[in-house]
Amino acid sequence: MIQYKAPLKDIQFLIRDVFNFQEHYQHIPGGEEATPDMVDAILTEAARFSEKVISPLYQSGDEGCRFNDGEVTTPKGFREAYGQYVEGGWQGMSAPVEYGGQGLPLSLGVIKSEMIGTANWAWGMYPGLSLGAMNTIYMHGTEEQKQRFLVPLTEGRWTGTMCLTEPQCGTDLGQVKTKAIPDGDGGYRLTGTKIFISSGEHDLTEQIIHIVLARLPDAPAGTRGISLFIVPKYNVNEDGSLGDRNPVSCGSIEEKMGIHGSSTCVMNFDGARGFLIGPEHKGLMCMFTFMNTARIGTSIQGIGAAELSFQGALPYARERRSMRSLSGTKHPDKVADSLMVHPDVRRMLLTQKAIAEGGRAMLYHAARLADRMMAAHTRGDTRGYDAYDDKLGFLTPVLKAFLTELGYEAANHGVQVYGGHGFIKEWGMEQIIRDTQIAKLYEGTTGVQALDLLGRKILLGKLKSFNEFRQEVNQFIRHHKNRAEMKPFIKQLKRYMLRWRIGTFRVAYKASKDRDMVGAASYDYLMQSGYVIMGYFWAQMADAAFSGIKSGEGDVDFYKTKVKTAEFYFDRMLPRAKAHNKMMLKDARSLMQIDEEHFAF
Amino acid sequence: MIQYKAPLKDIQFLIRDVFNFQEHYQHIPGGEEATPDMVDAILTEAARFSEKVISPLYQSGDEGCRFNDGEVTTPKGFREAYGQYVEGGWQGMSAPVEYGGQGLPLSLGVIKSEMIGTANWAWGMYPGLSLGAMNTIYMHGTEEQKQRFLVPLTEGRWTGTMCLTEPQCGTDLGQVKTKAIPDGDGGYRLTGTKIFISSGEHDLTEQIIHIVLARLPDAPAGTRGISLFIVPKYNVNEDGSLGDRNPVSCGSIEEKMGIHGSSTCVMNFDGARGFLIGPEHKGLMCMFTFMNTARIGTSIQGIGAAELSFQGALPYARERRSMRSLSGTKHPDKVADSLMVHPDVRRMLLTQKAIAEGGRAMLYHAARLADRMMAAHTRGDTRGYDAYDDKLGFLTPVLKAFLTELGYEAANHGVQVYGGHGFIKEWGMEQIIRDTQIAKLYEGTTGVQALDLLGRKILLGKLKSFNEFRQEVNQFIRHHKNRAEMKPFIKQLKRYMLRWRIGTFRVAYKASKDRDMVGAASYDYLMQSGYVIMGYFWAQMADAAFSGIKSGEGDVDFYKTKVKTAEFYFDRMLPRAKAHNKMMLKDARSLMQIDEEHFAF
Repeated sequence: MIQYKAPLKDIQFLIRDVFNFQEHYQHIPGGEEATPDMVDAILTEAARFSEKVISPLYQSGDEGCRFNDGEVTTPKGFREAYGQYVEGGWQGMSAPVEYGGQGLPLSLGVIKSEMIGTANWAWGMYPGLSLGAMNTIYMHGTEEQKQRFLVPLTEGRWTGTMCLTEPQCGTDLGQVKTKAIPDGDGGYRLTGTKIFISSGEHDLTEQIIHIVLARLPDAPAGTRGISLFIVPKYNVNEDGSLGDRNPVSCGSIEEKMGIHGSSTCVMNFDGARGFLIGPEHKGLMCMFTFMNTARIGTSIQGIGAAELSFQGALPYARERRSMRSLSGTKHPDKVADSLMVHPDVRRMLLTQKAIAEGGRAMLYHAARLADRMMAAHTRGDTRGYDAYDDKLGFLTPVLKAFLTELGYEAANHGVQVYGGHGFIKEWGMEQIIRDTQIAKLYEGTTGVQALDLLGRKILLGKLKSFNEFRQEVNQFIRHHKNRAEMKPFIKQLKRYMLRWRIGTFRVAYKASKDRDMVGAASYDYLMQSGYVIMGYFWAQMADAAFSGIKSGEGDVDFYKTKVKTAEFYFDRMLPRAKAHNKMMLKDARSLMQIDEEHFAF
Repeated sequence: MIQYKAPLKDIQFLIRDVFNFQEHYQHIPGGEEATPDMVDAILTEAARFSEKVISPLYQSGDEGCRFNDGEVTTPKGFREAYGQYVEGGWQGMSAPVEYGGQGLPLSLGVIKSEMIGTANWAWGMYPGLSLGAMNTIYMHGTEEQKQRFLVPLTEGRWTGTMCLTEPQCGTDLGQVKTKAIPDGDGGYRLTGTKIFISSGEHDLTEQIIHIVLARLPDAPAGTRGISLFIVPKYNVNEDGSLGDRNPVSCGSIEEKMGIHGSSTCVMNFDGARGFLIGPEHKGLMCMFTFMNTARIGTSIQGIGAAELSFQGALPYARERRSMRSLSGTKHPDKVADSLMVHPDVRRMLLTQKAIAEGGRAMLYHAARLADRMMAAHTRGDTRGYDAYDDKLGFLTPVLKAFLTELGYEAANHGVQVYGGHGFIKEWGMEQIIRDTQIAKLYEGTTGVQALDLLGRKILLGKLKSFNEFRQEVNQFIRHHKNRAEMKPFIKQLKRYMLRWRIGTFRVAYKASKDRDMVGAASYDYLMQSGYVIMGYFWAQMADAAFSGIKSGEGDVDFYKTKVKTAEFYFDRMLPRAKAHNKMMLKDARSLMQIDEEHFAF
């Protein structure tokens, strides 16, 4: 049985020692509410909810949702837990006060989502998708739409979905076929089939609000002819009460590898009444609001997989006895030494730990940027918004793809630590692999993220965000190069940053000669970037830990372990960046030269 | 729906062009039977059986075995397929003629197992485990035991199991508790519980023969006090007919992540009658016969996963249309280009292909060594046997761990090519991941194999097998260094071999100062070794392909593609060895310095 325990000490370390959220909160609206006491109270309460209410439903939820004649029953306990979630006001925590939220910083909501998602990702998808729908309506909806739809979503009384994918297209949304025809009454009638709709149907709330991509009758072909619509499950009366059933229904739910507790629905729109949101034909642009939130949200799944599988593997490694240490028996009074004496078991555990903690640091940094971006939006500061959007946009594909790939790796280590027992369902370790697999696929596969990073953010962006990030790291390097204890980290970081920079220039040059070079280099480019960026955050954590040790306050053992984990990362994970650098610089030739018909004989 | 197609062209390329099995067969008993015509006929028929009989049961078999009151029902169709297998005489193909087999070379049996295991691994485990039991009885049983038990196993009328693991121990078999007490009648009574017993109970055959590790009453503690026993499900009468039921029974079957069609049983021995096999207290040594077979057998699962997921992904990549090629539209008449135009999709497909074909070459090379080892055994040539045993023993952990890790990676690429659809059960791609996960765990985890390679085979063996292998590769390098078309491969291979050699010496030196260095370096050492060894086999395949092109005979496109795939491997996979080399040379400190109680706070 896996039981989640929120890593509050590590969370506090990041928001206090590393990122100084209190100082940061002075600069954003709503930040004044986020006093240290308030933050502590929220973290403690979110931890309690995650540990006591939804973590116990993690393994039982694997039994999955049931589908019967258009209705979906979620696993036992999901509904009750959701009731507690709504009662606690969790859904609106970081939502605007004017639409029923508490207006707390977005970054606090991210930490809450991390705890919930780590404890039980499948459960967390119901409120998680809803946050995406809320964001989209908040950013692009009319005032009336916000009052009618956003308020109940914020309260958690309703949930929302995002309906993008169709049978013939997922990544390539230009192929979307669903039609929206004006009904002459200010609304539209939507007809088409959407697949892979998470939370498309369930029994947690009475109402579900679908955000749907569809084409108007006069729409141009491709991505420039797609508009965004709000389609409620039940029509909503003027007074906000629910009216009759809208013809949008769940045709079936998918049999999947994992996240069985989350319903993945085929949604049929049979002339369902909907409302345009945002400008005509600009649906994809509006959708990016959701997409970026969702991608950062998905990165949490990687971090959560690393954290949960580490928490599952550690007690087993401590208790299970097998063989003797090669450097001499450690527990002579026992039948054998514990797994903890074996360096290779420690390698797996420390890899999980380094991914969870390093990923968490990357995520909280991104959350801080998101706070500032939203603050700029609130101020109506378009330039400020765009600047933070660029910074965040550069990190988003790395967070999404790199952290989910690594989280998946960590989940595999968790199973390996258990040996054959890891393969048995009862222990819950294999479930983490099955659940995490999807993180590498949805909201854009790893390959799509890699192309977004190298093709769009780096090359199309003319290296602007890349250079800004580099400058930030270089500033850190300059600032710390004379701090004796930081020297080993700074020396390595400098070297890897240099290789990354030169590699980026060389890839850019090669891509200017051969466009296939972009796709050929993209995966290795993304992975290299991820390792170097994570190295920068591990260096920052080491630095904060050294300060903590020096101050003599707090838990010195915690700080010392943080430094040692940073050493592990630099020794045994960062060098992977080198192989990626080497592979990414190869010409596209060895990928492209084989004719399609010669792949198999 | 995944439909397996046996890669006969690739198989023939290896046994003819690369390894010249016909020449090799001149040197082994039974080899004279393996004429080209006979080999062709066997391959064709094994392909047919795999493609037509058991491949269609692959996805349906995922529904799993049913357990009811001690009895196990295998998935629909398994029993009928097994009947056909027995009828075809497949089980005894490479078994000695004097015990009912056909006496064909072991290597041919390996190729047959590869086809069967790729088409349907879970099904293949029933006859597969049986081969292990047959081998053990053949190598260590008395003549009477062979007549009584080996013959029906060879005919396939009965199946066998290997009962090693107990709840408290898997890797550390010194902890085995099952007791065997002499019954005064030449037999023993066994009492204890074994877990994770594949094929421990099923409905394919009337009789099951368990090979069981247990302790005699006077046995010394630890690994030196373990003996090996034959325990039949039904007692066997003098005339070979089945007598009454022996008190060995299946208590339950495990709920697992994958290989649902294979029954994984808890076996309870309640004073079950058994027979000692091999010398008292030497059971573990006897078991190694099985273990080495099983480990090489498990490597097939890695190769099979790569092959099957490649076969599953390729048609999807050809048919699915998404986005346009960055180097210009390739299919202007279609709604979008096919996935095949995207370099990153090709990277995944070619990685699968390079693993499947490279792994196959490594396997067939090992099978050739096994042929020679068995030939020495038949001749009573102990020195010859030991020499081949050493060669094979050096490669075995690499085959087992490296190929299953890579096969698992390939299965993941297969899912990635499908995007979100890869997560859906219907397509069958996620099943390959779930089925292959166990390959990294059973018969010794990757970590255990890594320790076996570096600790036992390299360091304890004083680098003997390592140096022999190196000499073989160096001879290849010398022989080909002036062949113009081979230059790029030879140059790289030389460089990686040198780095491997120096790395080995450095690790050996460091390990002499710090024993924890062995475990600390072992995983990266194994992976590096795997990539370099596979590089050597890719170079051999390129060489054979160049000869094929030059000869102008055969399928020139096949040969050219082989060279291009070798180029892919050298460009985009071999460089990973470099990162492993770097990480393996780090001191054990960053792994060992964190106190056990400081892993979590």
